[in-house]
Amino acid sequence: MSGSPEFGRVVVFGVGLIGGSFALALKAAGQAGEIVGFGRTLAALKRAADLGVIDRIGVNAGQEVADADLVLLATPVGGVSAILARIAPYLSDDIVITDGGSTKGDIVAAAREHLGENVARFVPAHPIAGAENSGVTAARADLFRGKRLVLTPLPENPALAVEKVRSAWAWCGADICELTPDRHDRVFAAVSHLPHLLAFALVSELAERENSDEFFGFAASGFRDFTRIAASHPEMWRDVCLSNRDAIADELDRYAARLSKLRSAIERGDGAALETLFGVARAARRGWAGNQESGDRGQETEKYAARSAGK
Amino acid sequence: MSGSPEFGRVVVFGVGLIGGSFALALKAAGQAGEIVGFGRTLAALKRAADLGVIDRIGVNAGQEVADADLVLLATPVGGVSAILARIAPYLSDDIVITDGGSTKGDIVAAAREHLGENVARFVPAHPIAGAENSGVTAARADLFRGKRLVLTPLPENPALAVEKVRSAWAWCGADICELTPDRHDRVFAAVSHLPHLLAFALVSELAERENSDEFFGFAASGFRDFTRIAASHPEMWRDVCLSNRDAIADELDRYAARLSKLRSAIERGDGAALETLFGVARAARRGWAGNQESGDRGQETEKYAARSAGK
Repeated sequence: MSGSPEFGRVVVFGVGLIGGSFALALKAAGQAGEIVGFGRTLAALKRAADLGVIDRIGVNAGQEVADADLVLLATPVGGVSAILARIAPYLSDDIVITDGGSTKGDIVAAAREHLGENVARFVPAHPIAGAENSGVTAARADLFRGKRLVLTPLPENPALAVEKVRSAWAWCGADICELTPDRHDRVFAAVSHLPHLLAFALVSELAERENSDEFFGFAASGFRDFTRIAASHPEMWRDVCLSNRDAIADELDRYAARLSKLRSAIERGDGAALETLFGVARAARRGWAGNQESGDRGQETEKYAARSAGK
Repeated sequence: MSGSPEFGRVVVFGVGLIGGSFALALKAAGQAGEIVGFGRTLAALKRAADLGVIDRIGVNAGQEVADADLVLLATPVGGVSAILARIAPYLSDDIVITDGGSTKGDIVAAAREHLGENVARFVPAHPIAGAENSGVTAARADLFRGKRLVLTPLPENPALAVEKVRSAWAWCGADICELTPDRHDRVFAAVSHLPHLLAFALVSELAERENSDEFFGFAASGFRDFTRIAASHPEMWRDVCLSNRDAIADELDRYAARLSKLRSAIERGDGAALETLFGVARAARRGWAGNQESGDRGQETEKYAARSAGK
């Protein structure tokens, strides 16, 4: 039945970049009957409605969820617990819930706490579609197209629930792979959370110097690319740090040890050690960029997903 | 006399990205009578000659320099001392020497040591035109066009020598400003050398993990931009580290202190401190990007140059 959307009512909590783009993508694919938005400020929700991102502004979350087919949790990670507690009593047996958070361990813990057995309806997800811009005005239907989406199903999830959520993200055009929530948090602490912290640290340190203008005045293209992610959303990254605390602290320790090794080599004038370390980095970075360009990313993803699932 | 080039013979030591682009730019501007290249391998010099980047491969450095108007030192910083020692006895009163090194303090010290009074002929320079690619095949006539060039004149330089060197870089299309050598090294340790080290450190640390493929497999656009400079030239950056050792060690210490502050905030779950730090970084990064786009970089440069010169 081509005219009939896969999901009747879709409820989106947090209509920002991620939530708004999810709504737009499902609508563009003709797979959402109606989209109801909840958020922290009425102004933002009105903007979302004016832009046609949502069909209605939600009033009673319990009521809306009770008749919904799909719920997306897309607020900053810190706000998810309260929403889960609020909607827990209203979940039907057919509903599926997913999210767009950058960390998975703590959201899974919150879901187990608040949803009880109904945690089986929650299939966590992490769309890898970061952007420095945030808010509903930055939302677009193609944000997830061709981008990685990491699904982290729970042992409690029935296969049908996983398939429904997978299908929703597939309608958004995402390239879907799977990891366990724990493995997800370890991997992203290293390749995403840590680099963000390092960029925030560099820029904030320079900004707080007395003569910061002089320093910024001579920063060039290397600095520009290195620090692009330092313009990311402070509140979102605060929540990422708090919710993936242990893995991030571990990554920071490894990194500090590496910097200290580098500093010793510089201190003792050990050119050979420096050249070796830089050479390892250059080769790895070039190899990575080559893989990205040659488009075998999808295969690698499947490989890692299979490996990870086998653990 | 429009047909007559400003410089008769130009001798380039190190015909790679910087040296090759300098040669191509001066020729394109019609301001070099002939360009003679020296380098470490005959193969690279032959390639430079085949590409038309240089007119001749030099044989006797003393002889070539004796009749030259302009010398560019564009080898990795570590090779400069030996070249200065070799050409020192052959410098005429009219010759000017400049360089393209990323650090200035140690090259000035080497020049004072080897050139004696003739250090007056050496006007150090640093073109801010980094690229991950290196070698003569990456050279192009417009590499310096619209890019910052920091001139770091010495107290010994007569005004005419500074003007000649300034003119050579101006023919390359560079946007020229001035700093003292010492100030240059402090500023670039913070906004260039440190970010390179941080990117090298991150990528090398990940590359040396047993399961590095899995990590790289999930790295996305934030990682891509953050680590672009980790593909930079290992030998060049080895020399930068060794030659700007003190300023870089100082920057690493400041940075390590900032990371440790960040780690404590994460450890104790201090969301407010994290959000503040990230907010400072985001505002500074956005302000910087805004300045870059609005094109008031040139004015800022002049302002900083004037300030720095007044110190």
